[in-house]
Amino acid sequence: MIEIRPVTGIGEVAKGDDPGAVLVEALTRMSLKEGDILVVTQKIVSKAEGRMVALADVVPGSRATEIAGAIGKDARLVELVLAESVEVVRAAPGVLITRHRLGLVMANAGIDASNLGPGHDDFALLLPVDPDASAARIADAVEAAIGVRPGVVVSDSFGRPWRHGVVNVAIGCAGIPALYDKRGERDRDGRAMQATLIAYGDLIASAAGLAMGEGSEGVPAALVRGLVLPGAPCPATALVRAPDEDLFR
Amino acid sequence: MIEIRPVTGIGEVAKGDDPGAVLVEALTRMSLKEGDILVVTQKIVSKAEGRMVALADVVPGSRATEIAGAIGKDARLVELVLAESVEVVRAAPGVLITRHRLGLVMANAGIDASNLGPGHDDFALLLPVDPDASAARIADAVEAAIGVRPGVVVSDSFGRPWRHGVVNVAIGCAGIPALYDKRGERDRDGRAMQATLIAYGDLIASAAGLAMGEGSEGVPAALVRGLVLPGAPCPATALVRAPDEDLFR
Repeated sequence: MIEIRPVTGIGEVAKGDDPGAVLVEALTRMSLKEGDILVVTQKIVSKAEGRMVALADVVPGSRATEIAGAIGKDARLVELVLAESVEVVRAAPGVLITRHRLGLVMANAGIDASNLGPGHDDFALLLPVDPDASAARIADAVEAAIGVRPGVVVSDSFGRPWRHGVVNVAIGCAGIPALYDKRGERDRDGRAMQATLIAYGDLIASAAGLAMGEGSEGVPAALVRGLVLPGAPCPATALVRAPDEDLFR
Repeated sequence: MIEIRPVTGIGEVAKGDDPGAVLVEALTRMSLKEGDILVVTQKIVSKAEGRMVALADVVPGSRATEIAGAIGKDARLVELVLAESVEVVRAAPGVLITRHRLGLVMANAGIDASNLGPGHDDFALLLPVDPDASAARIADAVEAAIGVRPGVVVSDSFGRPWRHGVVNVAIGCAGIPALYDKRGERDRDGRAMQATLIAYGDLIASAAGLAMGEGSEGVPAALVRGLVLPGAPCPATALVRAPDEDLFR
């Protein structure tokens, strides 16, 4: 049986906080066990890593100003999105989808401008610099404090082509196989499997999303217990398809 | 706490079987409770609904023959894919991605040609005709037998643009909100939420995927317990974005 619990009692996270340390009290209370996987939203990781930017400090360039005018967004936010991105995938009224420097194709380069806490109405929150490294540091901090090293997934909510609604995906992983390769396994009839790559990190992130909620009562972390990992750990960068590998267009 | 258990002990499913009835024994053993959600893979639903086609009975037309030659696939399989689809999204060597008549954009129109059971090496399995209706019938059958009506998700594995690996998504739903609309809710700071639509059915399908596995020991159903549904039920068709609403291209 797999169990998923929200990690409650985490207060506001500020720049310089150790995102592992802020979870330790809650995880101790939850009796963290060997094999447990901790899923943490990008938002608290980014806050702890000081990725909050005051929009007042952003000077939009000419390209950002042009795009912002065309799509009806704040030019300073567009400047931040462009600075975080390597390619604009789609710009349309109210919509700005880019390929983030991490390879992630997502709205607004994953930059969050809502629910950033009191006194942060005109701030934006960028993704962590290296979410796989963030996940590993969280595992380190928890292990140092409790003596048990959890698997860690840093999650974010992504929209998707062709389907309504966002789902939680893994943007950083430590100690779990973000991608599980079944190539070479045979199906029950002894034939080669068709769908051989499983986005295991994304499955974990989505499962945790059920426990974390998204609303005013949302919690920023969940604990997943009882998984039997299907392979060796690999980072969330393995989930990113290079532009020339994209089969869908 | 959310609990996810594989539903074990389900035998081979054949045409004409009631897909709800084949689950009843296992669900009785698992003490099905009010509020439980049953996730069932598309494969056993399709088998029970008689969606298995012998490739020997398929006569490929000229378009299927042409595409099959260009991409190196069985022309009979391509004929079935085209017959199930309204649009070819991408045809390349080894790859055929279409928009299924249900609106789902996926490889091979969701047609499965592996692991179909003994004696079915040259068969193909189409998606259920109406997966939302299939889900409702399964809920009906389980309720009639056990007296408890579960939520039901019919799931399938989808590849995705930009990301490696497949994830489980909901192609049919009954008794759960496939899509949850948070529009109008405020975040903790009283501002409107940015990401307001949650693909809740897909989250449930992915969570269940962790318990069902995909390999030789895969099980075709899982039971999810402990969810607090965030809204009124709506079908999986609500997850399908119309072509003209696609923001990503």
